[in-house]
Amino acid sequence: MPPADATSGQAGEFRLIARHFTRAADQAAPVALGIGDDCALLDAPDGRSSVQWAVTTDLLAEGMHFLPGTDPEALGHKAVAVNLSDLAACGAAPHAFFLALALPRADDAWVAAFARGLFALADRYGCRLAGGDTTRTRAGVTVAITALGEVPRGAALLRSGARPGDDVWVSGVLGDGALGLAVRRGTVALDAASVQPAVQRLERPEPRVALGLALRTVASSAIDVSDGLAGDLGHVLARSDVAAALQWEAIPRSEALRSLSDTQQREYVLTGGDDYELLFTAPPTAAVAVRAAGAAAGVAVSRIGEIRPATGGGARLALIDRDGRAMDIAPRAFDHFLP
Amino acid sequence: MPPADATSGQAGEFRLIARHFTRAADQAAPVALGIGDDCALLDAPDGRSSVQWAVTTDLLAEGMHFLPGTDPEALGHKAVAVNLSDLAACGAAPHAFFLALALPRADDAWVAAFARGLFALADRYGCRLAGGDTTRTRAGVTVAITALGEVPRGAALLRSGARPGDDVWVSGVLGDGALGLAVRRGTVALDAASVQPAVQRLERPEPRVALGLALRTVASSAIDVSDGLAGDLGHVLARSDVAAALQWEAIPRSEALRSLSDTQQREYVLTGGDDYELLFTAPPTAAVAVRAAGAAAGVAVSRIGEIRPATGGGARLALIDRDGRAMDIAPRAFDHFLP
Repeated sequence: MPPADATSGQAGEFRLIARHFTRAADQAAPVALGIGDDCALLDAPDGRSSVQWAVTTDLLAEGMHFLPGTDPEALGHKAVAVNLSDLAACGAAPHAFFLALALPRADDAWVAAFARGLFALADRYGCRLAGGDTTRTRAGVTVAITALGEVPRGAALLRSGARPGDDVWVSGVLGDGALGLAVRRGTVALDAASVQPAVQRLERPEPRVALGLALRTVASSAIDVSDGLAGDLGHVLARSDVAAALQWEAIPRSEALRSLSDTQQREYVLTGGDDYELLFTAPPTAAVAVRAAGAAAGVAVSRIGEIRPATGGGARLALIDRDGRAMDIAPRAFDHFLP
Repeated sequence: MPPADATSGQAGEFRLIARHFTRAADQAAPVALGIGDDCALLDAPDGRSSVQWAVTTDLLAEGMHFLPGTDPEALGHKAVAVNLSDLAACGAAPHAFFLALALPRADDAWVAAFARGLFALADRYGCRLAGGDTTRTRAGVTVAITALGEVPRGAALLRSGARPGDDVWVSGVLGDGALGLAVRRGTVALDAASVQPAVQRLERPEPRVALGLALRTVASSAIDVSDGLAGDLGHVLARSDVAAALQWEAIPRSEALRSLSDTQQREYVLTGGDDYELLFTAPPTAAVAVRAAGAAAGVAVSRIGEIRPATGGGARLALIDRDGRAMDIAPRAFDHFLP
């Protein structure tokens, strides 16, 4: 989810405090929180299985990750979607999920609608609700889902696999999640025909599960774009110890987004988040296979730049305009939902 | 956690709305939420492992499951403890857990103390933090943990195994969790020496992991006492389709609890919750093995009654006083944390 990993102020603080959950490798708990991949990978207890569990946890809090009054059916959809998106980024096949739900009151119609949205998406991917906890809270609605997927041992896509010379790819279009939020908040006005698609992208993102599975033997690294392109690619670059140059004009954007100023477009694409597209790298020789994976999954894939060797001290990420000049990559920190 | 399963008003409403997450066996998701056991049981993806994962999820919300201002180190302990208690009730060995944490602000000292409490308990049981999500919320502190344990396939303790003639057993003492809450809220005054142990029971419950493992081949059913004896035994009776008669005088209570009125004692024991003891059944022939399991785990075990055949229409649970007369089992619904 955006707040924990984003590069802006509040979120940066939260990334900092998450270090308390990170432990040295020689301690009892060698698996780290917050600095890891989209999923943790667990072997079957007795080590006999050739399949691993990929496990991910995401929490959505009212006022932080969704606006008060959000349609509960859309919220049910999104709560599942953000977790399936993490599984997709690992190339894992969805299997089961666990739901912890805290509500200010026992509103039967609200829960019925939430459950409809939740199951409609989970069923499409064969992901079973296997357990959970529903409770009252004094605070706003909070949804925490832990999802488990299957991946052949050693085959999971990781953030650490990008190599100099690899192409950088992204699925779908970027920036529409942030555009949908701006529309919902009334800070951006779009023509009537563009409003619904933008809000749909914010409230009912489609996890790229089929694409993630198709990329498992093709991509060298992957992550989902939940916090904005700059932050999420930044995780890949840091974990792989490489740099990247992106072509601004090559980054896929909707017509609605292109109706905004260039500064706003960059803000929404680079630091907006909530897009839930897959960002991945692959060697140039795999370009045909990448396009075939996109076609098989029914999702557009766009080559947006390339991976370069890390240069000690310099910024890892460069954004290049059509004339070959470097552009500012953080025009303004995106403020997500909180003031 | 108490609210979702307890038998009182608010909690009853929440149990009702949880039915929206329960699906018919012929639908896509055969595993039910809220009507299940303490844990869901998952086979390894390829079915080759002889070990199953037991998985449980619990959510703690400020003002609902813990008081505002609760010591963060104690909260870290308790968040892990309630999940390990569910694993113990299934006879599962703790393996790993996932943490979703929502905080109103990035308070470094608070998180450091929370992490200390969390790891101190998890490390004792070799349970690794394998992933998570830390985020800001507009609301109070919310902690959701999903824990995974290991259990040989088919060996998990279930709520459905109690049979007429079985003895009913419980570990430790009951009612002190509710007593600790009453002390914290200032509604009960104890002598100075009794305050700390009662609060300790509320804030730092000890999950009965070793006892759960030792009972795996001995007990016929098990559950942990998180919602009060009446409600939790009620789950076992319903799932096993049996009835039970308990001897009030045989139910283990601390000296501090015995200093309260008989009505208060019954309220705290039967509907108080937050005890995190194991409640289990076993055939009378296994009594020696049950006592040996308790001794091996270093926990007192007490026989408190017996399982009887269900009688259609009648109440499943009877409480008998020292003269053999039936007692009222729900003197007053316990109000937990909310007004």
